[in-house]
Amino acid sequence: MNETKLHDLIEKMTLEEKAAQMSQVVSSFIHKGSSDEKITGPFAGMEVANEDMTGSGSVLGATGADNLRTIQKAYLERSRLGIPLLFMADVIHGYKTVFPVPLALGCTWDPKAVEESAAIAAKESAAAGLHVTFSPMVDLVRDPRWGRVMESTGEDPYLNGVLARALVRGYQGDDLKNDQSKLAACVKHFAAYGAPEGGRDYNTVDMSRRQLMEYYLPAYEAALDEGAELVMTAFNTVEGIPATSNKWLMRDLLRKEMGFDGVLISDWGAVQEAIPHGVAADNRDAALKAVTAGLDIEMMTPCYVQHLKTLVEENVISEALLDEAVLRILKLKNKLGLFENPYRGADTELEETVMLSETHRKAARETAAKSCVLLKNEGVLPLRKSQNVALIGPFAESTDLMGPWSIFGEEKDVVSVRTGMTEKLDTEPAVEKGCDIEAVLPEQLEAAVEAAKQAEVVVLALGEHSEMSGEAGSRTNIKLPDAQLQLVAEVKKLGKPLVTVLFNGRPLDLHGVVDESNAVLEAWYPGTEAGHAVADLLFGDTNPSGKLTMSFPHNVGQVPVYYNSFNTGRPKDQIDPEDRFASKYLDAPNGPLFPFGFGLSYTTFTYSSLALSSEVMEENGTIRVSVNVQNTGAVAGEETVQMYVRDLVGEVVRPVKELKGFSKIHLEPGETKQVVFEVDEESLKYHHSDLTYTCDAGEFIVSVGPDSRNTEEGRFSYSPAGRSGQE
Amino acid sequence: MNETKLHDLIEKMTLEEKAAQMSQVVSSFIHKGSSDEKITGPFAGMEVANEDMTGSGSVLGATGADNLRTIQKAYLERSRLGIPLLFMADVIHGYKTVFPVPLALGCTWDPKAVEESAAIAAKESAAAGLHVTFSPMVDLVRDPRWGRVMESTGEDPYLNGVLARALVRGYQGDDLKNDQSKLAACVKHFAAYGAPEGGRDYNTVDMSRRQLMEYYLPAYEAALDEGAELVMTAFNTVEGIPATSNKWLMRDLLRKEMGFDGVLISDWGAVQEAIPHGVAADNRDAALKAVTAGLDIEMMTPCYVQHLKTLVEENVISEALLDEAVLRILKLKNKLGLFENPYRGADTELEETVMLSETHRKAARETAAKSCVLLKNEGVLPLRKSQNVALIGPFAESTDLMGPWSIFGEEKDVVSVRTGMTEKLDTEPAVEKGCDIEAVLPEQLEAAVEAAKQAEVVVLALGEHSEMSGEAGSRTNIKLPDAQLQLVAEVKKLGKPLVTVLFNGRPLDLHGVVDESNAVLEAWYPGTEAGHAVADLLFGDTNPSGKLTMSFPHNVGQVPVYYNSFNTGRPKDQIDPEDRFASKYLDAPNGPLFPFGFGLSYTTFTYSSLALSSEVMEENGTIRVSVNVQNTGAVAGEETVQMYVRDLVGEVVRPVKELKGFSKIHLEPGETKQVVFEVDEESLKYHHSDLTYTCDAGEFIVSVGPDSRNTEEGRFSYSPAGRSGQE
Repeated sequence: MNETKLHDLIEKMTLEEKAAQMSQVVSSFIHKGSSDEKITGPFAGMEVANEDMTGSGSVLGATGADNLRTIQKAYLERSRLGIPLLFMADVIHGYKTVFPVPLALGCTWDPKAVEESAAIAAKESAAAGLHVTFSPMVDLVRDPRWGRVMESTGEDPYLNGVLARALVRGYQGDDLKNDQSKLAACVKHFAAYGAPEGGRDYNTVDMSRRQLMEYYLPAYEAALDEGAELVMTAFNTVEGIPATSNKWLMRDLLRKEMGFDGVLISDWGAVQEAIPHGVAADNRDAALKAVTAGLDIEMMTPCYVQHLKTLVEENVISEALLDEAVLRILKLKNKLGLFENPYRGADTELEETVMLSETHRKAARETAAKSCVLLKNEGVLPLRKSQNVALIGPFAESTDLMGPWSIFGEEKDVVSVRTGMTEKLDTEPAVEKGCDIEAVLPEQLEAAVEAAKQAEVVVLALGEHSEMSGEAGSRTNIKLPDAQLQLVAEVKKLGKPLVTVLFNGRPLDLHGVVDESNAVLEAWYPGTEAGHAVADLLFGDTNPSGKLTMSFPHNVGQVPVYYNSFNTGRPKDQIDPEDRFASKYLDAPNGPLFPFGFGLSYTTFTYSSLALSSEVMEENGTIRVSVNVQNTGAVAGEETVQMYVRDLVGEVVRPVKELKGFSKIHLEPGETKQVVFEVDEESLKYHHSDLTYTCDAGEFIVSVGPDSRNTEEGRFSYSPAGRSGQE
Repeated sequence: MNETKLHDLIEKMTLEEKAAQMSQVVSSFIHKGSSDEKITGPFAGMEVANEDMTGSGSVLGATGADNLRTIQKAYLERSRLGIPLLFMADVIHGYKTVFPVPLALGCTWDPKAVEESAAIAAKESAAAGLHVTFSPMVDLVRDPRWGRVMESTGEDPYLNGVLARALVRGYQGDDLKNDQSKLAACVKHFAAYGAPEGGRDYNTVDMSRRQLMEYYLPAYEAALDEGAELVMTAFNTVEGIPATSNKWLMRDLLRKEMGFDGVLISDWGAVQEAIPHGVAADNRDAALKAVTAGLDIEMMTPCYVQHLKTLVEENVISEALLDEAVLRILKLKNKLGLFENPYRGADTELEETVMLSETHRKAARETAAKSCVLLKNEGVLPLRKSQNVALIGPFAESTDLMGPWSIFGEEKDVVSVRTGMTEKLDTEPAVEKGCDIEAVLPEQLEAAVEAAKQAEVVVLALGEHSEMSGEAGSRTNIKLPDAQLQLVAEVKKLGKPLVTVLFNGRPLDLHGVVDESNAVLEAWYPGTEAGHAVADLLFGDTNPSGKLTMSFPHNVGQVPVYYNSFNTGRPKDQIDPEDRFASKYLDAPNGPLFPFGFGLSYTTFTYSSLALSSEVMEENGTIRVSVNVQNTGAVAGEETVQMYVRDLVGEVVRPVKELKGFSKIHLEPGETKQVVFEVDEESLKYHHSDLTYTCDAGEFIVSVGPDSRNTEEGRFSYSPAGRSGQE
């Protein structure tokens, strides 16, 4: 349909029809007998007649080719203008074939693999009839208490941006209309949802505008630049106003400054949440605030449906406000080709063949293996297939390995660690639970100890169940539950080689685990192919290559800990250790236990010959930074070479390190590769106190290494013509 | 001296002399053989000739009438223009007679007592020759990891403002020139020093400008409105620029908007810290940034002395910049009457009589008793003087009871808990240490248990030594050290009545103490008269009346926890408990263990008959809120009645409660008093998104009660003519 026709359609629509287009509900409101989502939030306690919502322009949560075809057909039959429904859902890290949680995907440092994971998710979802996924979440995260860190790719704005682009490409492809295996992507949560105070989900967010622009916005900008069709608002406040009601945030920043002209949708129930937030007195007020702020679709509350019409009729708002929103929604439907084919993609036969296909499982297995991070290895890994292994722990046989936000994945399809390991081992491992996730019985411990005694090596599969992180999964204690720490302590006493594999959705305080184990593999939630991927790594069929994208703190009292922090005026490492008056804790280090970028391999890599092409960067110039990396171990491996920049003197304080490039390379034993990065003005720019984004003349340090802590340094100065020093 | 003469003086001054006026050092730079401060920070490692600093216009840390007279005399003898030195020092909560730490002073909710503590500190300090104290610190604090919370009066902007005024009045009186028992007050640390990220001292501060204005600035404003003569800059960044180099903060906000025209001094070494912060390349750059930002005095680094002259000579800055700073400094010296009497106040005879006088000790004892907070009492307190008591714990005999920032107080003058209790008891208590502060030996525990076995009641004196909080005293673990928790557990096993008295400088995680004890008295660091005050309370000679001014969190993973927080869009208490999706932690409550305003008494108070004079407040109107409070117990007592306001719908989100008034009343047993508060427009105002400070029409809740958690509510609407609803 060409755009003129969309305008014609809008001309014909009543105010009620416009408001309905701007509303989204679960399918039970639209179609009797269909109920795919438990109704939580404001709607749960509300008296809203289903009839008020039957005209809603989009549906969330419903899925299945057959189901969605039925809903669409019934909807169109009673639709006056024949505008098709839009089907959206939370396809976050895979549909049926579940990939690692996004925090784990981040640890791959592999945009290709991440893109592929999204493409597979799109393919399966589109066959099931879906049009839009509420992904990627690109919120920068620094606080492991917040359970939803598992849905972010980490703490770095640059890397988050690169991976946001990969996910958008993977979901959307190049042609949403003609490639029916694609989904429109919805970037979330705008803005700064990743910074709730105290790490408590939905809690207040407060930061300076400069902080917002410099650290939190870049990944949204990257995703939009890549063409993401939708944006979702955040639950939190930004500068004291809930995002969903925040006119400055939506109109001035997102629409005008960032140039976003796609569909802006609220998060679940967020329009009405203006009332408990205390910026709206009632539903009418909430609708007024949201529509004025530029929100196109209200999700799961009835404020728009109840009040937009009256607000226009009473001249409180102009009908043009509704028209601009409806046009964006219709344009999206048109981009997806829904006017021509309202059943786009939904294909029961394809559904049969595409879900969990061999190709998809293979990709999931490989990506999962890339996403695990080897945190420690005292030579005990890889295991030998001839070894007598005891596999112990609440995750030994668990299939709770997909993690939060895998609502379409099914545990029956998940490969457990036991299965994965059994396939590798000459003789079956002894398997004991040892304890439950959060409780332990003496007989469980005893059985585990007995099994461990008989084994040459003990593999402990520990972690948090998937409800312990994810949305609304905030915790004040980020250690493993005491029951599991007790299991570690008991098994440790035997003195056997001890390998710990961790399944969890947040960086943990690993005291009580790391020192006690001879090897630690952070497996996150690896998805459907979990057991295969973990076994591939444990037995060395795949060499670990994942690197952390979020710092692991020593303890929760240090939080937030992140690598791109500031030096302060009294940096601990530059002050006499005898001097009390440094910026430090009396009882813990400043830095994390495991830093951003960290991850081990079964081989070793040696960095040498760091060289800069020049000591001076001219205006519009670049500096080539090269380093030689050699595989100095016995097996082939992949290494992610990281390049960081530091601006020594800024107009505002600048981080001690900022990731500005990385390269993942494959090296055979003994092989050396030269890795070359280009540093240009873009790498030096930052938001100044007046919020302009420019770079200053002056001295810079460039550092290259295997993680954010261990780097070699070079130095250059940036001397644009006619400028000297920072101004 | 009249002001014209000050201008004449400036006319005569050389650039070097001006720069010297703008520099402050410890006395060893100025006078051989005098060294009152250990040189830490940047100066420690620097090659600065003493001669460069001999002309410095002020000195910090030196004290003693004789000493300061000698230094002043020698200084004036070699001074070309006869401008006297200004003597400043950290007199934070008392000079020789040490009062409770400021966080404890806050808990008195008694502005008169707080004012008196400052007046006594001034009297003693002035006799010792001091002119200026670096107090009050009015930084709002929400994070108990930060050790310097002990130097703040707490988490509430209103109460901090009231107490800041009291302290300024106490120090300065009405006439600094003629009342030589007074000191000029220096408000610190401008701005937002109380909000370091991760609670790590000197760490980055970041917040929205509205947050700064609404919560962090009011107490500075109150202190300046009360006439505080000086302001000290903070170590931290504000919007990315260190406060000391921050032109917006100092010139635009402090000078222009807040109208401050007194002396602005840096914190120790902070000018040069612009270099490690990364906003200045070298000393010259640091000097340029600070002087441009409007900083009058550089403390303990030589940037001004080294570079101001050249900067003027090279026309980088105008000499007028120096002149305005020097004029402010000379005005302050003139206000103090130093031109007429450079030895102002310094009086060796008075020093003998005034220090630790009976009057001063009595005031310190009474104020200390008012500052302790009874957190729990299962009828075990007050103790009877005939009881057989075991006094156990590392603080049983300790004289480390003055807390941080009591540098002129001496432990030999401190009354220990043992002394205080022995004076009350018919028979001496059995005394055992039980453990050290951070370590325990089995024999210590055994001896403690033995002593406890013989007693009718056990008093445990526990806490943190004074180096565990205070400046640079940040901790990630805010529980008592394990050694002491073990002592509690061991003694608890005996089943004896257990009273715990705590000495500490921060809110602690008291799990492991509170449930185990039958009574808990939070004594903070009570100062010189600690033992007397604690004994007065334990034996009921004084009835506890202190109330917390900073929330005690359940655990460090909840931090920050404060009472005046926001409701969020998904408030836990308004959502079905079965619904996961509330703003909460999975493993801990949202709220604190002990809330702001909380504190028990040996009597009980019953609140009734809350009444509002009207349901509607007109423009410029007031509402009278009255409540009856009855002493329903058997002994006389003091109660702090607290009045909170909530704006139900704001243009921005508004806190669930905000303290807007309090009244401390004395009630005999059975007596009832009506307490009346006035709510006016000022009580309803807040900073809107455009930073204007106004109030909106709409609905408000007023609540009154004994603490921030337990209140009765009334409701009114504010209806100014011609305005309706929030806009």
